[in-house]
Amino acid sequence: MTSELPPLLVLGPPALYSLFQSQNSNKYRFLDAFSSNLPLLQFLQTQQIHPSSVRAILCNPLQPVTADVIRSLPSLGIVVTVSVGSDHIDILKCLRRCIHVVTLGTQFTADVADIAVALLIDVHFKISAGDRFARNWGPCKPLASPSGSKLGGKRVGIIGLGRIGGEVAKRLEAFDCIIMYHSRNKNPSVSYTFYSNVVDLASNSDVLILCCPLTEQTKYIVNKEVMLALGKDGIIVNVGRGALIDEKVLVQCLMKGEIRGAGLDVFENEPNVPEELFALDNVVLSPHAAAYTLDCFMDACEHVAKSLDAFFSSKSLIISPIT
Amino acid sequence: MTSELPPLLVLGPPALYSLFQSQNSNKYRFLDAFSSNLPLLQFLQTQQIHPSSVRAILCNPLQPVTADVIRSLPSLGIVVTVSVGSDHIDILKCLRRCIHVVTLGTQFTADVADIAVALLIDVHFKISAGDRFARNWGPCKPLASPSGSKLGGKRVGIIGLGRIGGEVAKRLEAFDCIIMYHSRNKNPSVSYTFYSNVVDLASNSDVLILCCPLTEQTKYIVNKEVMLALGKDGIIVNVGRGALIDEKVLVQCLMKGEIRGAGLDVFENEPNVPEELFALDNVVLSPHAAAYTLDCFMDACEHVAKSLDAFFSSKSLIISPIT
Repeated sequence: MTSELPPLLVLGPPALYSLFQSQNSNKYRFLDAFSSNLPLLQFLQTQQIHPSSVRAILCNPLQPVTADVIRSLPSLGIVVTVSVGSDHIDILKCLRRCIHVVTLGTQFTADVADIAVALLIDVHFKISAGDRFARNWGPCKPLASPSGSKLGGKRVGIIGLGRIGGEVAKRLEAFDCIIMYHSRNKNPSVSYTFYSNVVDLASNSDVLILCCPLTEQTKYIVNKEVMLALGKDGIIVNVGRGALIDEKVLVQCLMKGEIRGAGLDVFENEPNVPEELFALDNVVLSPHAAAYTLDCFMDACEHVAKSLDAFFSSKSLIISPIT
Repeated sequence: MTSELPPLLVLGPPALYSLFQSQNSNKYRFLDAFSSNLPLLQFLQTQQIHPSSVRAILCNPLQPVTADVIRSLPSLGIVVTVSVGSDHIDILKCLRRCIHVVTLGTQFTADVADIAVALLIDVHFKISAGDRFARNWGPCKPLASPSGSKLGGKRVGIIGLGRIGGEVAKRLEAFDCIIMYHSRNKNPSVSYTFYSNVVDLASNSDVLILCCPLTEQTKYIVNKEVMLALGKDGIIVNVGRGALIDEKVLVQCLMKGEIRGAGLDVFENEPNVPEELFALDNVVLSPHAAAYTLDCFMDACEHVAKSLDAFFSSKSLIISPIT
């Protein structure tokens, strides 16, 4: 019976996967490729599935959907990823083959924006460092000396003023921060100062917050020149993708005090974090957990289920914009 | 020469005290009682200062200005404290003796509000716990499972809607939280729901944020009944004073999961923190550092200097409201 259900090739499971499975066990035969060490085609063989019967992939940002994967599945029609970004998917190949790529929509927007603000405040006021300090020493020994400055009035440069960037801006305006931004194009509907050049943005900012997708154009958009332009009082927050920043240079700048601090939810070679950061008090590390709430994943699972339903029932499929 | 300057009895030094001293060394003879173990009158004797020549005290929240202290200084005319609260000062005694009590004004308002929001987001999204986790294990082992819910839509009950409470409300509105409050009186200029009873507020809130001064009426305003009314999904943030919460009960509730978490910038017996909290991941500890920025202390020092100048030059003195 199960074998008559259409196969769903799961390259990377979403959080709450077991819940998702139980809710959809009457609809799909789940092929858990992520739990096998075999190459894809051999794995399918062990499941007695012919590659041409696989029409749908479910994945997350940690498993790339490469040109090879796409090539080996001649009937592939949809790739659903449990992420906002699609940089782990060979989008060009999908477009050429008319394969739908469905990313998450607004499910994670508010949470990622919340975390961006949290990381900024944490670095600025040394919240995690203070907590660590209190647990190690008790607060009878206060932090060395007052440092830093007010958050209000700080010039915050947002790189990528999309949905998440816009929500970050809204929140930080309530803290009386001054918002400016860089993006591909100037947004005529906002009054924030626009910089077409990231170095200029950095020179005029106290804080840089990365909210843009990772593309060939945005890889290392924050490089050494940008970090030096931001300067030794500057803070960088990254809730986009690790490779938006030249991580080796970032580590050096943090260690040498060439920038003041960083709040990082993403890393260049996830799941690895540069070990040099573990000893630094001017960095807050978040294990790509920006949207790690039950609410979000419930929403995300529903989105995935609806997208797959629409595809397999051949109704018109609303494709999320590929950012 | 120095002996001709009016004495300034320093019971507790502000941060940046050495800067303050150097800026005001031509105006006052600084009597650093805080650095002596002697009783006050004996200390003054060693300094060859008659108690009746002391007209001004500078203090911070860690050193009480008791009725005894006030009684022993017959010419005392002003107590300047480097704090927003004045609960460490015997206010009634000061009022009866017509002694000016000068607290800080708005210098710390924005920073304390920023920290209140930071502690809430940190507890809600487990930022410090995640950072600790990443440093110990690397992010290759993600947090156990998604938990919690969106911050947007949460009902935040603010206890004490004064300057700081108002700034907290403004910030959390930008996160789409629903604001409600308790204070002595309903504030007709805001549209937030008012609760005259703290238990009712707690029953209708997901989060309680304590921003009120410590008085006889507000001591233990958050007691066991309030915590149980808030319930096991509730978060408590305290940026007021430690004794606003029954700390022993709070520790028990946190350990038993009777409330979800707490972000604490203040403690009942500072500088001591209950050791049971050190092992808990549902609490964020901040060593009464809410306003620990250089900007703030520069502002505070200026405020202190101006207040003392006004007093000693007998100009009319603008007294900050005693909250």
